[in-house]
Amino acid sequence: MRMLINVPETVVADALRGMAAAHPELTVDVERRVVVRRDAPVAGKVALVSGGGSGHEPLHGGFVGPGMLTAACPGEVFTSPVPDQMVRAAAAVDSGAGVLFVVKNYTGDVLNFEMAAELAEDEGIQVAKVLVDDDVAVTDSLYTAGRRGTGGTLFVEKIAGAAAEEGAPLERVEAIARRVNGRSRSFGVALSACTTPAKGSPTFDLPPGELELGVGIHGEPGRERRAMMTSREIADYAVDAVVEDLEPAGPVIALVNGMGGTPLLELYGFNAEVQRVLGERGVPVARTLVGNYVTSLDMAGCSVTLCEVDEELLRLWDAPVQTPALRWGR
Amino acid sequence: MRMLINVPETVVADALRGMAAAHPELTVDVERRVVVRRDAPVAGKVALVSGGGSGHEPLHGGFVGPGMLTAACPGEVFTSPVPDQMVRAAAAVDSGAGVLFVVKNYTGDVLNFEMAAELAEDEGIQVAKVLVDDDVAVTDSLYTAGRRGTGGTLFVEKIAGAAAEEGAPLERVEAIARRVNGRSRSFGVALSACTTPAKGSPTFDLPPGELELGVGIHGEPGRERRAMMTSREIADYAVDAVVEDLEPAGPVIALVNGMGGTPLLELYGFNAEVQRVLGERGVPVARTLVGNYVTSLDMAGCSVTLCEVDEELLRLWDAPVQTPALRWGR
Repeated sequence: MRMLINVPETVVADALRGMAAAHPELTVDVERRVVVRRDAPVAGKVALVSGGGSGHEPLHGGFVGPGMLTAACPGEVFTSPVPDQMVRAAAAVDSGAGVLFVVKNYTGDVLNFEMAAELAEDEGIQVAKVLVDDDVAVTDSLYTAGRRGTGGTLFVEKIAGAAAEEGAPLERVEAIARRVNGRSRSFGVALSACTTPAKGSPTFDLPPGELELGVGIHGEPGRERRAMMTSREIADYAVDAVVEDLEPAGPVIALVNGMGGTPLLELYGFNAEVQRVLGERGVPVARTLVGNYVTSLDMAGCSVTLCEVDEELLRLWDAPVQTPALRWGR
Repeated sequence: MRMLINVPETVVADALRGMAAAHPELTVDVERRVVVRRDAPVAGKVALVSGGGSGHEPLHGGFVGPGMLTAACPGEVFTSPVPDQMVRAAAAVDSGAGVLFVVKNYTGDVLNFEMAAELAEDEGIQVAKVLVDDDVAVTDSLYTAGRRGTGGTLFVEKIAGAAAEEGAPLERVEAIARRVNGRSRSFGVALSACTTPAKGSPTFDLPPGELELGVGIHGEPGRERRAMMTSREIADYAVDAVVEDLEPAGPVIALVNGMGGTPLLELYGFNAEVQRVLGERGVPVARTLVGNYVTSLDMAGCSVTLCEVDEELLRLWDAPVQTPALRWGR
């Protein structure tokens, strides 16, 4: 146990208290576990609500703010939030223009957001849903039927969030979110397992000197396990997996994401290799983001997400965003 | 070895190539190892140049941009950059208004920046220097005579950078930098050792279940080693160490910093405890920053830095900043 915690039972509540103290621009309901941008509901604006298990920070709470999510619902570590949280979030942020639920494709999240959508609609809130399933590594996995939702979530939340901020109506925000998910693909690699507070030991067995190619963000198995590879070899493997599936015809935005335990120095070096492979494959890169955005607690490793963009999606990506983890423009 | 690298020899160059690709707003000279904001020199503006060993990212390269550093010189991992880099950086950014060197108090950095200052002055560049020595853990340590420079560097670079951006002359920027360092104190805690690429194994021996109280950002020994403590106990120890030394009479800005390997979920939880202790000690908190800013590669752990601010320093802290790692306002 090398964790900076009190007891496993209070990890999420403690983090929310700490988040509230650091970010007065957010309203954090620690007891009910809802993070909301302070000025919500914003008159006439479609609201975006997401959520999922904790342990992937800054996803989703760190993406709440003008230009991105309107609210986030954190569950227990690696555990879906409950419908009650989602309904409360929807009620807190709905201006009458409707709410888009952004749902990563894990069975628990899908079921709970579905139930929440029904309950919210019973309360007179118009709800649309978009499922994020960008991970090309495997189809059907631990916790998932179909593909898993990982790094593509950041693109969906940023780009659809920008459309909502501009005043697009619900069906348009939903359509943009679907388009972004449809043009996003991810592939993750673990150099170590992660340790959940409740378990206190690594969640899966990955001997030193081996890596898991195609790992999920909860340590779910990927495509194969191999002896340690270089940054260059990992980039070849991961980028090829993404590009072969996405088959981009135009420019992409690249997210070179750390799983939590890999230093930024290494992530930047890995980005150099990712850019090299993209260049060799003839894929133009419009924007690049490097850092820890969709993490797996202290897992060492990385993921690559590409989102193919047209002029509109790139403009929405560049639009101002003011959240704890992503902020630019104004 | 769970590192995302090619070979240890190219880690810094690889990272700089990846940084260049991700940040077109910076000019990155990979060969000469200088990171410069693209629009430098800025007419009439005092330039801020810092640098130090790599492995502490985003420090310093991630702090280059409008409102903060004008240039950064990364050395090898945990190794001072050489005077030649610093002179090149100074020459690249000097507008004629002079250059402030921000130097963390490690023997190698201090000597090299001193030599660079002499060389730059020989080239007709006006140079001032500020030494950052905010770490209260120990006096005289591995690599250091006096106190070590750690998290306070972020405050010096941000606040003096804002003054320079506003057009303050060199002696005023230098005076503000000294004032910030004089009002900043830090204390760090390691829950694990870090692993440098060159060594490939932990840099010091910290058995699981023990922590190092007062650790330096290169894993230098601290005040004492103890059996694992809770987040609450660690906050009590670290904040008290800082507050007893700083004796703040007014509000502070709090940096709750991750060493690299500790998840953001845990850092936010730790922040809740830090805020609790500060409340109990009667120290008002004006602003709080939580995240990985001054790291030690993959070390698990955290540090607390407090900077006591008056109205002017707080205004300069809030002033716009546009760097890879720190950005707000406009």
